[in-house]
Amino acid sequence: MDQAQARQWLATAVEEARRGLAEGGIPIGAALYGADGTLLGRGRNLRVQNGDPSMHAETAAFRNAGRQRSYRGTTMVTTLSPCWYCSGLVRQFGISRVVVGESETFHGGHDWLASHGVEIVQLNDVRCARMMADFIAAKPELWGEDIGA
Amino acid sequence: MDQAQARQWLATAVEEARRGLAEGGIPIGAALYGADGTLLGRGRNLRVQNGDPSMHAETAAFRNAGRQRSYRGTTMVTTLSPCWYCSGLVRQFGISRVVVGESETFHGGHDWLASHGVEIVQLNDVRCARMMADFIAAKPELWGEDIGA
Repeated sequence: MDQAQARQWLATAVEEARRGLAEGGIPIGAALYGADGTLLGRGRNLRVQNGDPSMHAETAAFRNAGRQRSYRGTTMVTTLSPCWYCSGLVRQFGISRVVVGESETFHGGHDWLASHGVEIVQLNDVRCARMMADFIAAKPELWGEDIGA
Repeated sequence: MDQAQARQWLATAVEEARRGLAEGGIPIGAALYGADGTLLGRGRNLRVQNGDPSMHAETAAFRNAGRQRSYRGTTMVTTLSPCWYCSGLVRQFGISRVVVGESETFHGGHDWLASHGVEIVQLNDVRCARMMADFIAAKPELWGEDIGA
């Protein structure tokens, strides 16, 4: 896909991540875009804010998009490489593409998704990597809890 | 693990599935048990009831268990073989064991989980299989939506 478009969509996910950080939460954001470029849903990690371990950024964006009959052609944009939980979501529902802000601080399941036909767009965004690196350094226990490590 | 214990735990998941069916929902239930046998959380698919596509039975049980520092030794009990989304959850959080009510009507990611060291207990429960087969026959479109097919 067009890199300028991918970076524009990433800005939505970054906004969510920053909102999460401001709330004292884990700074990971995501957004689900439709095949026609419509924003279907956006969300952020809500472990701290709602005491809800099931709301990773991607699952929150997916949830906020509501019920959809098909995910063909949709794009999940996330500030961080998706963990197995969120990679499983992408594979199960046939989300066509994942835009990854960065995969430097955490290497999730994006290779696995690529091997199953999902288009992966890596942006290696420095802001995203810095935000996560700072968070992990500040709250390593919370980060470990969020990824079951 | 002890089969009688597994069947006793499955009864909790079946209760959830039946509650979901009575609500007009998708009849899949789950429960997360701690290493010491404590029930940590139970839940059911809530796509129809809450208009929430992110709440599969396993993710609902996981959510209802609240924040946990570790899932070592825990068991996810589910009436149906876990889809990729729910299999990813189990792998990411290091849930040690999955008790599968049945995998006849849907074959999810339990083999993948086994290959990654998760203990899989298959119960081949006839009630579970009948409940899903009846549901799939009655509402094939809804079932397709729930698994992105």
